Amino acid sequence: MKASEGKIGRVFVLRLEDGDVVPDCIEKFAAEKGIKVGHVILIGGIGGGQVVVGPRQSDEMPPDPMLLSIEGAHEVEGLGIIAPDKDGKPKLHIHASLGRAGKTLTGCLRYGARTWLVGEAIIYEITGTKARRLPDPASGFDLMETG
Amino acid sequence: MKASEGKIGRVFVLRLEDGDVVPDCIEKFAAEKGIKVGHVILIGGIGGGQVVVGPRQSDEMPPDPMLLSIEGAHEVEGLGIIAPDKDGKPKLHIHASLGRAGKTLTGCLRYGARTWLVGEAIIYEITGTKARRLPDPASGFDLMETG
Amino acid sequence: MKASEGKIGRVFVLRLEDGDVVPDCIEKFAAEKGIKVGHVILIGGIGGGQVVVGPRQSDEMPPDPMLLSIEGAHEVEGLGIIAPDKDGKPKLHIHASLGRAGKTLTGCLRYGARTWLVGEAIIYEITGTKARRLPDPASGFDLMETG
Repeated sequence: MKASEGKIGRVFVLRLEDGDVVPDCIEKFAAEKGIKVGHVILIGGIGGGQVVVGPRQSDEMPPDPMLLSIEGAHEVEGLGIIAPDKDGKPKLHIHASLGRAGKTLTGCLRYGARTWLVGEAIIYEITGTKARRLPDPASGFDLMETG
Repeated sequence: MKASEGKIGRVFVLRLEDGDVVPDCIEKFAAEKGIKVGHVILIGGIGGGQVVVGPRQSDEMPPDPMLLSIEGAHEVEGLGIIAPDKDGKPKLHIHASLGRAGKTLTGCLRYGARTWLVGEAIIYEITGTKARRLPDPASGFDLMETG
Repeated sequence: MKASEGKIGRVFVLRLEDGDVVPDCIEKFAAEKGIKVGHVILIGGIGGGQVVVGPRQSDEMPPDPMLLSIEGAHEVEGLGIIAPDKDGKPKLHIHASLGRAGKTLTGCLRYGARTWLVGEAIIYEITGTKARRLPDPASGFDLMETG
């Protein structure tokens, strides 16, 4: 385990509107506001897009991500962390549980999930840490380095 | 997307007791303490009540919320946002995943969920934002305006 | 419901590495840093270990926790609260949703869950509260007292 210490900076309350795509709209907002590292919570509706639901084989590198489509309006509960990539752009890694009619899909919203009706989000900026995500050759993913 | 900026105010650590109803008991606490806007996390047990698990038809306005009963003691992980309604009363919009025996129900605890044995919660007050939820005629829901 | 007021102290950004066990590695870190009370968020991969998925009988005291094994790499979204036990050691109570291939397991990571590839976590220290978890004879669990 690695760690670095920071502190809370600005706090933003967000309203996502029907059709807004996660993580894109939050990454764009972070870039505009100059947020480098942050914590995101998201609740509301998600009505389309895709979710990464784990690697096809658990012991294979690089992993082959399984993708499932989001069919119909789901209730979402999401947690994410923003950190800059190797080019300094804020990237949001967000995992979410999506529920509809008693069935739940949990995974990563990396490939875009579309807001249904409304999303409510909070961003906590975390200052004073050099955390970022750098390419990892073995997995092909950007993995966090805490700085 | 709309946004407003605030800052963290008071932080409260809560113990919910067997039978305490969410979101009611947290809304009552927020009203007593004068918390207008806040972020809530909840973990513990939920043993009864109902969950909104999406709209019956994803493309129909106003939506007809589907409700499922919570049968048996579940492990809960919940995320919520408090904001005042049109009358200034703090309303908690909380989404949660409820797990029991390998099955997960994810949705909105709007119609009341009953604590089983224990709940642990944290409220982060967010000051300096005029976020509130106002009636939206098309959906019939109160939707966040960030102020 | 019981409550106590605190404030945010230090903030830590953590990278968990393949094989790191939750909650153990976070409890060890909290002990090293002198974190007594805190809030934890966790996203990333979990590839083994066990999850408590509720009591076998919902109306029996003490409860008999049901355990399920985590088979294969899952996408995790977890929320936890750190508080000292009766001996003053920081204990992390963490609930999580674990998703793989469209199936979600939600429960408590008390008996150890093993990081797959990477975990990203944030710890918010909460100072000024005497919250702790003390043995409850009826349930056999350590339940939060807010101080």
